[in-house]
This record gives sequence, C-alpha cells and structure tokens, in this order.
Amino acid sequence: MNLNALKKLLVGSPLATAQARHERLSKTSALAVFSSDALSSVAYATEEILLILVLAGTAALHYSIPIGVAIAVLIAVVVSSYRQTILAYPLGGGSYIVTKDNLGTLPGLVSGGALLIDYVLTVAVSVAAGVAALTSALPSLYPYRVVLGVAFVTLVTLGNLRGIRESGKLFALPTYLFIAGIAVLIVYGVIRWTFGWDAAAHAARAVIAPTHDLTLFLVLRAFASGCAALTGVEAVSDGVPAFKPPEAKNARVVLAWLGVILISLFMGITFLARHYGVSPLPEETIVSQLARQIFGDGVFYYGLQASTMLILVLAANTAFADFPRLSFFLARDGFLPRQFGSRGDRLVFSNGILILGGTAALLIVIFRGSTHALIPLYAVGVFLSFTLSQASMVRRWIVRREPGWQWRWWVNALGAATTGLVVLVITVTKFSHGAWVVVGLIPILVMMFVSIHRHYADVAGQLSLEGYTMPPPMQHTVLVLVGDLHKGVIHALQYAQTLAPSVKGVYVELDPERTRRLEEKWIKWGMGVPLVVLSSPYRSLLQPFLDYLDHLLAIGENHMVTIVIPEFVTAHWWQHLLHNQTAFLIKGTLLFRKNVVVTDVPYHLR
Amino acid sequence: MNLNALKKLLVGSPLATAQARHERLSKTSALAVFSSDALSSVAYATEEILLILVLAGTAALHYSIPIGVAIAVLIAVVVSSYRQTILAYPLGGGSYIVTKDNLGTLPGLVSGGALLIDYVLTVAVSVAAGVAALTSALPSLYPYRVVLGVAFVTLVTLGNLRGIRESGKLFALPTYLFIAGIAVLIVYGVIRWTFGWDAAAHAARAVIAPTHDLTLFLVLRAFASGCAALTGVEAVSDGVPAFKPPEAKNARVVLAWLGVILISLFMGITFLARHYGVSPLPEETIVSQLARQIFGDGVFYYGLQASTMLILVLAANTAFADFPRLSFFLARDGFLPRQFGSRGDRLVFSNGILILGGTAALLIVIFRGSTHALIPLYAVGVFLSFTLSQASMVRRWIVRREPGWQWRWWVNALGAATTGLVVLVITVTKFSHGAWVVVGLIPILVMMFVSIHRHYADVAGQLSLEGYTMPPPMQHTVLVLVGDLHKGVIHALQYAQTLAPSVKGVYVELDPERTRRLEEKWIKWGMGVPLVVLSSPYRSLLQPFLDYLDHLLAIGENHMVTIVIPEFVTAHWWQHLLHNQTAFLIKGTLLFRKNVVVTDVPYHLR
Repeated sequence: MNLNALKKLLVGSPLATAQARHERLSKTSALAVFSSDALSSVAYATEEILLILVLAGTAALHYSIPIGVAIAVLIAVVVSSYRQTILAYPLGGGSYIVTKDNLGTLPGLVSGGALLIDYVLTVAVSVAAGVAALTSALPSLYPYRVVLGVAFVTLVTLGNLRGIRESGKLFALPTYLFIAGIAVLIVYGVIRWTFGWDAAAHAARAVIAPTHDLTLFLVLRAFASGCAALTGVEAVSDGVPAFKPPEAKNARVVLAWLGVILISLFMGITFLARHYGVSPLPEETIVSQLARQIFGDGVFYYGLQASTMLILVLAANTAFADFPRLSFFLARDGFLPRQFGSRGDRLVFSNGILILGGTAALLIVIFRGSTHALIPLYAVGVFLSFTLSQASMVRRWIVRREPGWQWRWWVNALGAATTGLVVLVITVTKFSHGAWVVVGLIPILVMMFVSIHRHYADVAGQLSLEGYTMPPPMQHTVLVLVGDLHKGVIHALQYAQTLAPSVKGVYVELDPERTRRLEEKWIKWGMGVPLVVLSSPYRSLLQPFLDYLDHLLAIGENHMVTIVIPEFVTAHWWQHLLHNQTAFLIKGTLLFRKNVVVTDVPYHLR
Repeated sequence: MNLNALKKLLVGSPLATAQARHERLSKTSALAVFSSDALSSVAYATEEILLILVLAGTAALHYSIPIGVAIAVLIAVVVSSYRQTILAYPLGGGSYIVTKDNLGTLPGLVSGGALLIDYVLTVAVSVAAGVAALTSALPSLYPYRVVLGVAFVTLVTLGNLRGIRESGKLFALPTYLFIAGIAVLIVYGVIRWTFGWDAAAHAARAVIAPTHDLTLFLVLRAFASGCAALTGVEAVSDGVPAFKPPEAKNARVVLAWLGVILISLFMGITFLARHYGVSPLPEETIVSQLARQIFGDGVFYYGLQASTMLILVLAANTAFADFPRLSFFLARDGFLPRQFGSRGDRLVFSNGILILGGTAALLIVIFRGSTHALIPLYAVGVFLSFTLSQASMVRRWIVRREPGWQWRWWVNALGAATTGLVVLVITVTKFSHGAWVVVGLIPILVMMFVSIHRHYADVAGQLSLEGYTMPPPMQHTVLVLVGDLHKGVIHALQYAQTLAPSVKGVYVELDPERTRRLEEKWIKWGMGVPLVVLSSPYRSLLQPFLDYLDHLLAIGENHMVTIVIPEFVTAHWWQHLLHNQTAFLIKGTLLFRKNVVVTDVPYHLR
C-alpha cells in the first residue's frame, strides 16, 4: 500500500473548496458544542483544590467551600464580561483579534501566544483527566495511562484530519449525559447526606497529616488550581457566527446557561467532596470516589465515568478547532509560517492539527499522564488572554462611546481587573510548580512571531518590483559532470545540448589509466562535446571541480553556470543507496552558491 | 566552527595519494602488531571456560585442565595449518580471498560474511574485556562500564579515521608488557603454589552449588567458550606483505612464536585459576583475582591490569584495519556498495571504519558491556572462516600438486577437519545462547552480497554502449512554476529563457482574485513569456499541474520537460523553513517521473 492510499484510508478523500459550508447551531446544540471544554473541568477542578489544601492536613480541606464560592463569583464575572464581547463582535471575538483590534499588535501577539499554549494544554489536561476517569473505573488500566493518553490524542488528531463535520450531533449526547449524570449525583448525594445514610462511610475518613502550614499563600495556591474550572468559558463568544440568527442574542443566552450550569455543577461537587469527606488519591479521582459511594459500584457509576471520559475527550477536541484557526489568523497576518495558512485535502488546517496533536502527546509523555502535574501550567495562559480580551473591551467602550457604554464599561472593567488579579495570583503561587514554563514561553513565542513577521516583510521588500529595472540578459555556461561514459551520460549530454550550444564535459581524474579509457570512449560517443579533465592530488572529487567553477564564475556578475549531473533512478529505493553518492554530495555543496544551478538528469533503470 | 573545521580537528588534514606507503616490520615489531588480537584473549578465555563449568558447581571446575589442553592442541593444529597458507599466499591470504580463489565465489562470500561479523565482535568483546580489566582494578567504575566501552570504541574509531601510522611503535610496548606481566604472574604464581605460600587463601574458596548436571554437553559448551582463545591467530597470515624480506619465512617464524606464547600464557592462567581455586565473579575478572592474590594490591597488580586493558584496546584496533580492508575487497568485487571502495581524506577507508565503530558500540550498549553475553556470538564466525580457509588449502594442494604437497595436504586437512568439528560443537552448544544470531546473519549477508552484485551487473548491462545506437535529437519544453511575480521569479524567467526559446509560465489558481492581480503584473514584467493558468477545484497545488505535465509528456517519447522552480536561498537556515514548501513538494513528487527534469533556480536573499 502506498502512502497516498494509507492517507486516504486514515484521513479520507479530498473535498472540494465548494464543499466548505457552515453548520448553523440551535441553542441546545450550541450549548453542547461550546460548553464541553468549560463543563468538563468540573471533572477535575475540585480535586485540584483539595490536592493543595491537603498539604496542610485533612483539617484544611474545609477551606474548599470558601474557595469554591470565590471561583463561582469569578465565573459569574467572566461570563458577564464575555456577554458584552458577544454584542460587540457578532462575527466572533477571539482574544487575538479583539486584543489586536483595540490594544495593538504586540498585546494581540501576547494573547495569541498565550492561547496557543493554552490550546495545547487543554488537549493534554483534558485527555489526562479523561484517562483518569477511565482508570478510576478500571484500576487495572492505571499502569497504561500514558499509552492510553497518547492513543486518545492520536484518535482525536486523526478524526480532525478527516474533518469532524457532524459536530452538533457528536457533541450533544455525551455533553447532556454528563450534565445529567453530575446533576443526579449531586441531588442524590445531597439527599443521602441530609438523611445521614452514609454516616458510616464518613466516619471511616482517613486522616492525613499536614506537611505544610495552612498559610494564605497555600489557600491562594489552592484557589489558583481551582481556576482551571474557568478554562473554555470564552468558547461561546469565539463562535458566535455558528449560531442560528439572531446570532448574538442566542449566543448571549447560551453563555448565561453555561455560566449557571458550570457554577451549579462545580459547587455541587465541591460541596459533596467536603461533606462526604473524600481525599484526593493518586489512582482514583474525587468524582469517581463520590460516585462509588453515592451510586454504589453499579451501572450508574460506570455510566457516569464513561460520560466523564467522553466529555473530556470532546473538550480536547475543541482545541483542535481553535488552535488551527488561530494559527491560520496568525499566518495570514504573517506571524507564523505560511504553511499554517492553507487548508489541507479535507478542508481542515492539517499542519495546525498535526502540531497540536504532536505537542500535546509529548506533554502527556513528559508529565507521565498526570493531570496534577500539568495544572500549574494551564491557567496562566487562559487568564492572560481573558484579561487582555476584557481590557480590549474596556478600551473599545471608551473609544466608541456607543449608547449605554458606561455600564458596559464597568462590567468589562470589573472582568479585566478580576482576571488580571487572578493572573497575578496564579503566576506567583504556581511559578515554581511549572507556571514559569509558560511565563517564559510567551515572550519567546512573541519574539518568534515578530521575527517571522520581520523576515516576511524583509523578503517582500527585497523581492518587490517597485522601481526595479530589468537586469541585462544572462550569459549561460552548461557543464556536464562525468564519471564514466554510458547510456545515462549520453542521455545527460543530449539534454545539456538542448540547453545551450556550448556544453563542456568535466571529469575529475583520480587514476590516469581510467582517464585514458574514458577519453577513448569519448572520441566515439562524446557527440563532439569537449571534455575537461581536472587532476586531483588529494583524491577529492569535489575540490578540483569547485576550483574550476570559481574560475568560470569569475567571468561576470550576470553569468550563470548550470551543472548537469547524470543520475540513476533505480527500480527499488534500496538500490538508490548503491549509486548517486557523488550527485548527492555535489548538490549539498553547491546548494548555497550564487549563480549556480544544479540539474539532475534522471536516467530510469528497469 | 563549521563542520569542516570540526572534522579537521578530530580527524586531521587530508593526505595526498602519493603519501600512501607501506611500513615494513621486523619480526619483533610484527609479533607485536599481529599478535595483540590473539594474545589478548588470554585475558578472558579461561574465565569463559570456568563460567560454564561452575554451572555444575565448584567441583566441576577441575575440568578446566583437560579442556585447556584440548584448546592448546587446537592452537597448535591451527597455527601449523596457517604456516602452510603463508607459504602459498606470500601476498597475504585473507580467508575471503583464499576461499574465493580455491572453492569459488559463494564459499568466499560465506567466509567474507563470517569475517565481517567476527571483526565487529572482536571490537565489542575486546573493549568489553578491556573495560572489565579496568573495573576489576577500580570497582567504583563498574556502574559506568557501558559508557566506558562506548568511549573506548569512539576513541579507537577517531584514531583510525586519522589513520594510525606509527603502528609498530604503538603496539610494541603494551604487547610486550602484557606478555611479560602474564609470564611473571604465572612463574611467580607457580612458585608460590609449589611452596604452599597461599594455602590459607585456597582454603577460603567459596563453594558454589550446582544448578546444572555435569554432562558431556556442558563440558563441550565450556570448550566452545574457551575457543575464543584462538580468535586473531589468522592475523599473521593476512599480513605477510608487511614483513621485512624474506616475508614468508619471517611470517612463518613469527606465527610459530605466537603459537608458543599463546599456548604458554593460556595454559599458565588456566593452571593458576585451577590451583588458586578462583571462581568467576561478575565484578572482577579471573586474571585480576589471580594477580591480586599473587602480587598483592600493589604496583605490579595495577601495572598488569593496565597492560591488559591496553592490549585489549589494541586488539580492537586490529579489527579497524581488517574490517575496512575486507569491505574494500568486497566492494571492489561488487559485493558491497561502492562507497566502501574509496579511501577518505586521510588515506583510510572511512566508511568501513565508521560502520565498524558504530555497530560495535551498539553491541556494547545492547549487551550491557558484558563479555560473557557476547562470547556465544563470537567464535562461530572465526572458526567458520578458519575451516573455509583450511579447506581451500586442501583443495589447492590437490589441484596444484607442487613438490611435497602430500604432507602439506595432511596438515591442512587435519586443520580443516578439526576447525570444522569445532564449528559444529560451537554452533550446537551455543546455539540457544546467541550463536543463532550469527548462524542466521551469515546467509542474510551472503544474500545481500549476491543481490548487490546482481544489481551492479544489471545496471552495467543496462548502461552498456555495446551495440547502442544514438537516440534521435531531443525535443525540449521549459516551464516556469509561478506563485507570484517578483524579482526571484524574474530571475528564474530570465534563466529559463536562456534554456529554450519557447518558455511558458504555469500558475495554479486557488483564488481568482489573486490570478487577476498576477496577470496585471505579468503584462508589465512577464518579458513576453506566455502564462498558463490552471484551475484547482480541490485546492491542490500539485494535481492540476501534474495533469498538465502528463498532457505535455504525451507528445512524444524523446520529449523532455524541464520544470524551473524559483527558490529562495535565505541568509539563515531557519528562515528556509518559512519558504520553499511548494518547491520541496514538487521535487519530491516528480523525482521518479520519466523525461522530467526539475531545476531550482536559487535567488539569494540578504
């Protein structure tokens, strides 16, 4: 099977440009499509809070409730703020575009860099958490979590290379199952707690000894970890054009729903975790522990774990739409290589998808598939782009002063100030646990964007025809490099003769006896082409030829030398290794010579 | 520092062909040069025997004496046999050449394949044993044995890439130090044993419980392991031309010396090991244990370990002369790729040296630097080439019937029969311990040799000018692939116009608006070259162009199409990644098209 057939099997047949179309989503479908990233964080956000608090011992775990409330308030603020963005950007307000529009290019690039990192982490964290949901239910799979994580990433990558077109249908079932499952868990759990049905279990709670003091810093660190709950909230405002009309209105409604559902589920799990007295374990997630206690080890439990795993994989999937789209915008503006700007065979941005999948899989391998290890890297980028996006809106209201701008200004100003404060808290409390990577990487990415842009601009300037005067006609010399005289060389000589009237054969002498034999043959078969013999005291094939070439090039500035190399094309690839080493060497050496063109003339062997 | 400067630093400046000369060796120098491989096996052969016997418990160790005697007899037989080869091949009788001469090509290739494997194993085993001598003296280095082994191989490889010219001087001191050191150890050890000075140490001998029965099979396995003592004995007969005249006579004398010294040292160590009651240990070699007991932990002990290590590294070094030389012969006869047939800058066969070093280092890593793990692979190839070489001599005497051939026939027949029997014993007893690798690899290598040879013969036939009639003159079409119109494209158009009077520009349309802009520019700057616009419904740049190309090629059999691609050469390599993707794609796709030549025309950017 050749490569094309394999690609077709895995990725599908090419689609025509005319087949690109926009699917318009109803509110319920849109909620499913745009909320999976945000809602899926319910599966791990509470656990990340507890995991920090437990450092100060079991007694410190009751701080999860006030921290949870703070995060719920934060969600409300961010959601309100983004509802303003939807109004202002009915065509979709991604943070890169909004920031570049209102605050300028450099802040826009910061936002873009932060988002690119964030999308990679969304994939890595979501898949790691999805695998954790799976291995909580089936502990025998725990040793294979890294392999499982990489397998999930590969699957999602392949799916996206095909182009997942039925997104509404695909997302609806797992998302609503997850919402329903967690809701039932919370309601039934609260009932059991109210009536004291699980009193025995609560008493059995293990007491974990503190290793850290319960400081304000530790509480803030726990809060910073919990902020992972907000990741993905911006998705609705990025995707406004996908809604059925009236787009903006529908999107605002869906975003409000999302906020209410997210707060409810997150607070519910946090409340249960507190009152069912579960502690974080390496092999089993908090949600799994709760579900096992409340539902027992039956079909409800496994159903909830399955839908948790699915929504997390879907959350990863959203990044596969976002990352390539952002790369496309950056490439279009000249900040990323042009390769990101073109759609592949299946109307998707293949390069972005491959890079995202590859990097996320690498992170899963490096961090051994651990959600906890990845979390400190996660939220910095998200909140930085929140802050820049809200700050852009603040500036926009001031500049435009549209009717009613004052109170909208206040909403966005509150959003910007709050999320900015959170960036600070996360950076400080998580810095040594991994946030430094992201803090360091963002300026590196921005510098990369800027230098790519500068390079493209520089090249465009050098190539511009503005005020250009046509150079004088070119002079041209054609040389045929000869090692022997056979059918392949005769083919190359014939070809060279069509290029220019005066062609020369060039031969580097390693052994005078061979030269004599070649010259004899040349008289008969050389077609009147003169043969230049260069001697080589050091057995180098290359140096004498390079010296000769320099001598020719010295003739004039607009003088081109074409070097024709007879090359075999063998029937099998391995046979290729038995020939053509000289051709390869010469091409490599002359690649960067000015005014030199190297032309292989293939001679096809059976 | 560029690559050339690095190469010069590590490998040295190129040498002229005229600088190739032969160093002639006196008998004492020759003994040093050609015996290091054979003698160095004294450092591990006894240990390998004991290591097998001890499986049947400490009591079985006394079988080492009869096994040692059998091996000594074997050495005498092989040495006598090779003394005949020297007479018959005064220009050097490597097993490949001798076998090919007398038994035909296929047996010659078997011998060649066996020897190539053997040389790789000589390097791996000798270096592993050399590192064992070092770590026996300095046990704290034991955990780093793999790294040390790879470092030694790298050093020897680099040394050989430079070309080790002072070989006589280099070899003499360590070899004679080693011979003297082991001799003193044996004599002094026998004296101490005779007078019972080490009685206390003997009593302290640890008793090891048997895990295997003492079967004939086990004794034969121990014998097979001990046969490693014979590796390298053939070196003298391979190197006859390096001796001072009368070459053959001197070589025969040196080979006899070598036999006597080898038997004495090997039997001496085996005797001491038996009577000092040492048992093999993972961290300390037998020779080291003996030297520590007999000399004590002083300067004599460390001196002996150092000279053991040195001679083992030198033994590895001999393979670095043999492997590339054999590869050269095989390449010259068309059984290996031509690359092995040419000397590098420093008059050495660089490709062979690099492959030998790389493979040996790989083996050391795979076998964790353990001599014992490598030994079962080692002797099969050596004895197979012994057998074929002796059998060749048997046939030669019959065919030539030179004066006195009868008794010479008997000597070689005994040699061939004995070594053939040993091949059988080694293969059977060591098969499951690793010999299967070599037994399987030899036919694979032979098949590779044969198919390479067949390929070269086939190509030569296809290219031969025998009865060839000149093809009719070529027709030629030149296309310039255009994505935009700028200075680089104008440069390429100018170049293309020097190639043929009728040039066409070809543009693949992805976006009609861009086509319109291009056509506007083309009117002003297109130099009258016609522009062909191809439409692409699937956004593929390639497919419409390939279809157009097929259409052109259909014109006639002797019609060549040259595709000129304007390519940027950027100032820095990373900038290259930002351009030229299309050029790369097109070159890859068209590489195997018949009658198509792809020509990059570089445009140099600042």
